[in-house]
Amino acid sequence: MNKVITAQPLTRASFAPFGEVIDFDTDSHYPINNSRCERYHALVKPEAAGPNGHVLVNLFRGTPYDFPLTLSMVERHPFGSQAFIPLSPRPFVVVVCPNGPDGPDEPAAFLTAPGQGVNYPRGLWHGVLTPVGAPQDFVVVDRGGDGSNVEEFYFSHPYEVRLPEDFAP
Amino acid sequence: MNKVITAQPLTRASFAPFGEVIDFDTDSHYPINNSRCERYHALVKPEAAGPNGHVLVNLFRGTPYDFPLTLSMVERHPFGSQAFIPLSPRPFVVVVCPNGPDGPDEPAAFLTAPGQGVNYPRGLWHGVLTPVGAPQDFVVVDRGGDGSNVEEFYFSHPYEVRLPEDFAP
Repeated sequence: MNKVITAQPLTRASFAPFGEVIDFDTDSHYPINNSRCERYHALVKPEAAGPNGHVLVNLFRGTPYDFPLTLSMVERHPFGSQAFIPLSPRPFVVVVCPNGPDGPDEPAAFLTAPGQGVNYPRGLWHGVLTPVGAPQDFVVVDRGGDGSNVEEFYFSHPYEVRLPEDFAP
Repeated sequence: MNKVITAQPLTRASFAPFGEVIDFDTDSHYPINNSRCERYHALVKPEAAGPNGHVLVNLFRGTPYDFPLTLSMVERHPFGSQAFIPLSPRPFVVVVCPNGPDGPDEPAAFLTAPGQGVNYPRGLWHGVLTPVGAPQDFVVVDRGGDGSNVEEFYFSHPYEVRLPEDFAP
């Protein structure tokens, strides 16, 4: 039987060991434009290293996954960070792994609140983009350039990722 | 009387002399993640020059403006680009100016379709963020670092910016 990982709510505190949460629930903001606009400042500083590394702004259109989810693979980007900000007011699942001695350690899974985005720092093991319940669009800020910027790791025993028991899509 | 500028629909063709449109209506896309996701690739390559220049991801929460709008000022960022991608499915107004011999030339105004974003290249004169009809949230990808990254220009005769006559908010 596969080991079960249950997604927990995404918060700054719970996600702090891995990366940044991108939402309005932060003290890092100030008014601009004669106070007609509030700037939530520098929530992410994207990284774009390696040969000819540069930051890219992209849109992703993702299809939803069924749960429980069989998690066989995680990936990481050795040259750059990758931020996902949802354009759809829907939840998605974030899977991340600490570094272990021989690759990714046991995964942690988070369920976003609608509107929350995340940033994966350079080199953080993570699952693929995992919309829940419906197709979803995202702004993605990541790295372009030369060289191979993706590594994949296949678990010898896949995990089973579940949504919280009280989740109603 | 102030000269009247009427906003026109934002399209890749109409905005091409100024900057990039950010939406899904592009040929620059390909499937990833075993075709579970479509990547609309490299819609913007942010610029972050000047001392300690680096790219930032921010959120902006803007209040709407009344129309017709009196346009007295435009600004530009000498060290970096600035991209605005709406999180609210609502239109906003984009004001940009070509470079003239003594500062910004006569403005052009565009009305976005819901979901469209824009990128202002480094050094492009533009108006402040101008939501229409309701408060709006945006992802903003711009430049952090040292040095002064904003110049303002006040017109000797303000312009009057109008929405299209057939616009229904």
